[in-house]
Amino acid sequence: MKNQICFLVFVLIIGTSGIFAQQNPQSAQKDKVLTGKFEEITRFALRDTFGYGLLRQVCSFGNRLSGSETLVKVEDFFIEKLKSMGLDSVYTQSTTTNNWKRGSVGRFTPVQSDEKFTIAAVGGSVGTNGVIKTKVIEVAGFDDLEAKKDQVKGKIVFYNFAFPQDVYDSFESYGPTGAYRWMGAIRAAKYGAVGVLIRSVASNFDDVPHTGSLGYFDSIPKIPAAALGVISAVKLSKFLSDPKNHNSDFEFEMDCRTEEPATVRNIIGEIKGSEFPDEVIVVGGHIDSWDVGEGAHDDGAGIVQAVETLHLIKKAGIKPKRTIRAVLFANEENGLAGGRFYGKSAAEEKVTHIAAIESDRGGFSPRGFSVASSPEVLGKIQAWLPYFLRTGIEWIQEGRDGADVSQIKNCSAIIGFVPDSQRYFDIHHSANDIFSAVNNRELELGSAAITILTVLISEFGL
Amino acid sequence: MKNQICFLVFVLIIGTSGIFAQQNPQSAQKDKVLTGKFEEITRFALRDTFGYGLLRQVCSFGNRLSGSETLVKVEDFFIEKLKSMGLDSVYTQSTTTNNWKRGSVGRFTPVQSDEKFTIAAVGGSVGTNGVIKTKVIEVAGFDDLEAKKDQVKGKIVFYNFAFPQDVYDSFESYGPTGAYRWMGAIRAAKYGAVGVLIRSVASNFDDVPHTGSLGYFDSIPKIPAAALGVISAVKLSKFLSDPKNHNSDFEFEMDCRTEEPATVRNIIGEIKGSEFPDEVIVVGGHIDSWDVGEGAHDDGAGIVQAVETLHLIKKAGIKPKRTIRAVLFANEENGLAGGRFYGKSAAEEKVTHIAAIESDRGGFSPRGFSVASSPEVLGKIQAWLPYFLRTGIEWIQEGRDGADVSQIKNCSAIIGFVPDSQRYFDIHHSANDIFSAVNNRELELGSAAITILTVLISEFGL
Repeated sequence: MKNQICFLVFVLIIGTSGIFAQQNPQSAQKDKVLTGKFEEITRFALRDTFGYGLLRQVCSFGNRLSGSETLVKVEDFFIEKLKSMGLDSVYTQSTTTNNWKRGSVGRFTPVQSDEKFTIAAVGGSVGTNGVIKTKVIEVAGFDDLEAKKDQVKGKIVFYNFAFPQDVYDSFESYGPTGAYRWMGAIRAAKYGAVGVLIRSVASNFDDVPHTGSLGYFDSIPKIPAAALGVISAVKLSKFLSDPKNHNSDFEFEMDCRTEEPATVRNIIGEIKGSEFPDEVIVVGGHIDSWDVGEGAHDDGAGIVQAVETLHLIKKAGIKPKRTIRAVLFANEENGLAGGRFYGKSAAEEKVTHIAAIESDRGGFSPRGFSVASSPEVLGKIQAWLPYFLRTGIEWIQEGRDGADVSQIKNCSAIIGFVPDSQRYFDIHHSANDIFSAVNNRELELGSAAITILTVLISEFGL
Repeated sequence: MKNQICFLVFVLIIGTSGIFAQQNPQSAQKDKVLTGKFEEITRFALRDTFGYGLLRQVCSFGNRLSGSETLVKVEDFFIEKLKSMGLDSVYTQSTTTNNWKRGSVGRFTPVQSDEKFTIAAVGGSVGTNGVIKTKVIEVAGFDDLEAKKDQVKGKIVFYNFAFPQDVYDSFESYGPTGAYRWMGAIRAAKYGAVGVLIRSVASNFDDVPHTGSLGYFDSIPKIPAAALGVISAVKLSKFLSDPKNHNSDFEFEMDCRTEEPATVRNIIGEIKGSEFPDEVIVVGGHIDSWDVGEGAHDDGAGIVQAVETLHLIKKAGIKPKRTIRAVLFANEENGLAGGRFYGKSAAEEKVTHIAAIESDRGGFSPRGFSVASSPEVLGKIQAWLPYFLRTGIEWIQEGRDGADVSQIKNCSAIIGFVPDSQRYFDIHHSANDIFSAVNNRELELGSAAITILTVLISEFGL
């Protein structure tokens, strides 16, 4: 009964000429068969929880940063898993990328107080090269930094910018908040700061720091950066505002570092198309994660949904007309080397990609799909909305998601799976992103929705 | 950008004659003002988390079964809270209802094995009156019970019916599974069973038993009933299928009982309508909960959303044209005495209810509203869908929800708030239903959506 309004409207608009053609018995029959298959796919997903079981195994390895031993083990695990699934081919693509290590030391402590602050190095940060002992200057944001630029030299800049809670789509808050993680060190170093602290990019209120990438410019000194847990950020702000602490010194010490480039692999499994084997539909996520938590939502969910898409297609006995290729992209988090390599190879080999779907917004309850394509292709995909009624997908709209698949050039449609965003930044890039934070039914509905879209594109083209 | 398709379609359908009338400057201006107010309401909800903070307080009291001391404390707490909010009136309605006590003993143990099984008495169950020592017979469901009816006498019937996972809307699985909790004791007692065990009505896989009401017929012996945790149910089935256990006896002991009727209160706070004070819009949930967990989603979420609706209307500076009445209904879980009393009083006093909205499906991410009304009224409410774009509400459709508000007769629209259902039966009626299972953003979007709907009805009538 969901989506009844939209459904009726679509039937109205499409009338008798589209996929609901009631006056064409052959087409109506085909539609009925498809609808039945899609219901079956959703039932299989929810009942068998293939993807959820796979995610449990993936998470049990631990987190998977590029260059880690665990990532190599998980790559091997997926190669074996895909080989066991009776696919037409399983292969890998190797490339090299950043090899950042958190190290074992990470502390930020006031010299003359017992107050504790929880930090995590921001990914890619240089170490402190021993202990930095200096004062901290708090700024509300970049404008405030500009206003205080003359007071910054030799100090640690603390960006206390809180995640804006008051918007519906939490990804809208990621841009403005993430800017401090990405650009904070560059902009503070320009004025002579020796270190940077950011308030974690987090929508919840706890003391678990959230990591993620930063940027450096070669022309500006590279200074160390760490994220404070939200509670620690609030505490630090209060501490600094107390007159008795105005001259407090802090010790800041981290031994994170970048080592020799690491080799990472895209893991690929595919079912060859029966009619148009040269037309490829990619369904993917990224296999790497940050080095905290278990990378369960980010992006364990995405990779198991990609693998489950192949599983569900086979389980439902569908012989796809076009080639379905699951790609577990390497190194999305700190380099995008896997996505870039895949895109470059595909261009060189002149592979025809008709669609590339990525799931990299967590394994939450399905909401919609974002599509980057021509208006005609978008319209064609939107007309399929009624097929998704029982998966939670309520809309299909123009948009751009999926850092990895966006590296594929000349693809008719770059599609992002968009689940409910409310809880994502509670767990994103943090120790909160563990298997138990994923709900089996939410994850599996995502797998079903992605599979249905994949089958529709395979069946009808774009 | 969400709901873009539906939005465009609505604009198309409604054209220039409805609430989007572009050719009527006055109407267009009013629409703009309303849209601004609704955005403000959503921002207030997400940023201030009034309801989430209130829920934290409610949950800190503990659970709130009718007849418990805690419920009385929470009733008093809400009376004081409502009185502090500057409303036009705050009052209560008292009635009496069932007063069931779980007691302190609840065990189900095999006589000749150390195997442990976790149980919780089903609400309303009689006690075992000492220890019942007998055999257990497992049945897959009622059909299987009929097939085995001659083997049931003197035994405990174990209904091992698993929650069907393979449907999108988890409430669809509640009916068939809940039937064993509600009717299991009656149907087994008919064939001479002396006790009943059900597999918990639960969508997840853990060992936390889920309680809830059962039914008894006066004409059939009342036998004790308990719910097994899902893992315990699986374990018991395995235990019973082992040939060496075929003659095992079990001890079943519970001292739950029904005491003298308890007095419970509906708690009511209202803002008087400025133009049509005699037209009442109820927004409600139920204040009681089961006696396990904290009743956070069921229905702490619903009552704080009702109170937050009043808060947000005042905070946004809205003077409602019609009377907005928040009702925290008593005793939904085991008697519906509060809802019945409210409905009866309203009929006697000839109160004109134009709408009654209930939130009793948990504090999860908003999805839609179900409406029981005439087609004309439904159409009017559906035309408001675009106002909900930034709350997650994606559809408004015919349906019936809200046990309490359904007791109100001659109400133009009985409306149920429908959040995402995927996680509800993981926590429902169990020790899993605690404050930390509620997400602040999900809960607050629900408050915003309910407030917007309330304001629209108040502004335009039905």
